[in-house]
Amino acid sequence: MICIGSELLSGKPNTHIDYFTRRLRTIGLPVSRCTTVSDSLPSLTEAFASALQRADVIISAGGLGPTFDDLTREAVCAATDRGQHFEKKLFDGIRAKFRYARVPMPEENRRQAFVINGADVLDNPHGSAPGQHLKLGGRSVYLMPGPFSEMSPMFESFVLPALRKQHGGKLSHETLSLHFAGLSESAVDEALQPVIKKASAALDFTILGGHGLTHFYATATAPSRAAARRLVAGVRRAMPNSLRSHLYSEGDPTLEAAVGSALRLEGRTLAVAESCTGGLLAARITDIAGSSDYFLGGMVAYSNDLKTFVLGVSPDTLKKHGAVSAPTALEMAEGARRRFRSDYALSVTGIAGPGGGTPKKPVGLVYIGLAGPDGESKVLEIMAHGDRHRIRSQSANAALDLLRKTLQK
Amino acid sequence: MICIGSELLSGKPNTHIDYFTRRLRTIGLPVSRCTTVSDSLPSLTEAFASALQRADVIISAGGLGPTFDDLTREAVCAATDRGQHFEKKLFDGIRAKFRYARVPMPEENRRQAFVINGADVLDNPHGSAPGQHLKLGGRSVYLMPGPFSEMSPMFESFVLPALRKQHGGKLSHETLSLHFAGLSESAVDEALQPVIKKASAALDFTILGGHGLTHFYATATAPSRAAARRLVAGVRRAMPNSLRSHLYSEGDPTLEAAVGSALRLEGRTLAVAESCTGGLLAARITDIAGSSDYFLGGMVAYSNDLKTFVLGVSPDTLKKHGAVSAPTALEMAEGARRRFRSDYALSVTGIAGPGGGTPKKPVGLVYIGLAGPDGESKVLEIMAHGDRHRIRSQSANAALDLLRKTLQK
Repeated sequence: MICIGSELLSGKPNTHIDYFTRRLRTIGLPVSRCTTVSDSLPSLTEAFASALQRADVIISAGGLGPTFDDLTREAVCAATDRGQHFEKKLFDGIRAKFRYARVPMPEENRRQAFVINGADVLDNPHGSAPGQHLKLGGRSVYLMPGPFSEMSPMFESFVLPALRKQHGGKLSHETLSLHFAGLSESAVDEALQPVIKKASAALDFTILGGHGLTHFYATATAPSRAAARRLVAGVRRAMPNSLRSHLYSEGDPTLEAAVGSALRLEGRTLAVAESCTGGLLAARITDIAGSSDYFLGGMVAYSNDLKTFVLGVSPDTLKKHGAVSAPTALEMAEGARRRFRSDYALSVTGIAGPGGGTPKKPVGLVYIGLAGPDGESKVLEIMAHGDRHRIRSQSANAALDLLRKTLQK
Repeated sequence: MICIGSELLSGKPNTHIDYFTRRLRTIGLPVSRCTTVSDSLPSLTEAFASALQRADVIISAGGLGPTFDDLTREAVCAATDRGQHFEKKLFDGIRAKFRYARVPMPEENRRQAFVINGADVLDNPHGSAPGQHLKLGGRSVYLMPGPFSEMSPMFESFVLPALRKQHGGKLSHETLSLHFAGLSESAVDEALQPVIKKASAALDFTILGGHGLTHFYATATAPSRAAARRLVAGVRRAMPNSLRSHLYSEGDPTLEAAVGSALRLEGRTLAVAESCTGGLLAARITDIAGSSDYFLGGMVAYSNDLKTFVLGVSPDTLKKHGAVSAPTALEMAEGARRRFRSDYALSVTGIAGPGGGTPKKPVGLVYIGLAGPDGESKVLEIMAHGDRHRIRSQSANAALDLLRKTLQK
């Protein structure tokens, strides 16, 4: 995999790598190397030339634009010792796109109508840069544009199906993805090691963790779809009982989607009251399309005054126990439930830092409150670790997980 | 730069690349290539061997752990044709760390006390894996552990200062970073092209954009700090007037920090009322440490009922204009300002999609309301583009920018 662009080496996050590797895993194609390289012709040429010595399939993103520093076509020509030619029909198509958008076509875009000798053109419905596919004996080179919005439709409609046919053809693949909350990555790892150690060589495992969530992937490669399915089903069955109550999803890795599905299933509504997460919990919940079906609203109450006069937390509770305390968390949840007239309400109050910590209430101490129908309410104390960003993220995850476990019962 | 670990090729986001390139830019050291490679000895060896042919400085992260798939030391030995040796003193240090943490040391950790012949050890106060620095003629290889929390302190305290001394020694560097809101990346690019075209060859430029913000970096390389400063000052002075009102920060790239500083400076407070951003605006504001000094709270009101009975939006307005409308945005902001007793209040109401759009009110249509002291209030209509995530992010940025411009006046 070759990601092209000086901006990727100047601090711009490269999200292509994660995307490619995740999608290619679904067809059982392992990525052995990703090279991120700047827009320089010698560097680019060397990157393609050395990749051609190592890999069966090379996928690139970037450097197909119209400007002088878009050099992917030239680099592939140099690395494979071939020329390129102008395709009138392609040029007419590019010109038509500009005409449709009522934008004059800059002369520079003519460069995008050049095709590497022997390559097929990959249509780009979302931009002016066409992709190219070059076959070299048994090897394939796919050149795609850099912007994600242009690259990913091309990848999904041309490249992935072609690779599935070419490389996933003889063998079938099936991925089991299990997502756990409330356990550290190493605890999940330890619990699953016996399963991993006993597993067939046709299974490949990955464990990723962070902010209180752990994601486990098992990919089976087998002669038939059924055989691959049996292999992952075996892994699923072998999952230790100790992990079952922590499993929040098989599929979608987000906890907010799991909680949303559970609320929808039960026909229940939710509201939140936040202090240290400052809106992050509500933002996570509403990141799910259709969340308005079960999420009524939220309240961010930073000051004690607001906790009292909007959420109805008793001034005595605040005075006696402080804003960061179990009784305050409980009253915030109960207040939000009343205020928003929801079935459930979650609250978060804690010390996200870097300031505000004391020996008795250090940075990372967070209380999660939950109020539910029939007067059931509970509170959870956690000690989150890391910087402000991580503490807030772990707190939001802990709150969502508390509700998930409650709904599961 | 070599990032090591199969997990980086299985969908785990690689944040090291962004970090390294950003930090190295401050000493004017361009990164020519980043290779992400799996934990396989032949791949790793080849990655180091080919990097040694190309680069003066090689930085790696990962593969220094205790387990069988940590193979960075072995790969460097193979690529440079040398051995490694056991260092008793280093081993005692590692053992002491486990003793201090009251955790038994697994036998595997003995591997971490092996040092490549000729290499210096880099201390790791945050973990058990020491780093190593190997000098090869004029070239340097720095091996660091993979976890960010262990790698970055080592990078900041050993590697960056050493590189500054070695490679930034003769020349000084100065970076100007300008951050713009309310203009597209291409508009900023176009406005700055005359400056870039006339600039000295000692200046290097980068423009990055996304979600309504554009970040511009100019790095000068000169024989003295003063000369480098004069170069970037020249760029700053040459900035076209048309950009000035869009400039929200020189330094910190986040808009929420700029708005926070302005509120603090003016001694003003803020509250928010959100519909389609669902807590994201509050979460962004409270991501800044110390934001409780000026941020009072926020309200996420998804339902019309809540907009009315918590924020006081008139049912007539909702009926006549709809929830996504300029009058509703205004009343939400005014209601939040009253409710939270703040000086300013921002509101956001719109259609984040993917559902809910109509021909008259398509997905992406968002209204931003602002209520301020002395009864001043205004409303902004934007058409955001992209998926739900991007629409919400652009909306939050547009809201923050509306307040920033108001405070600037």
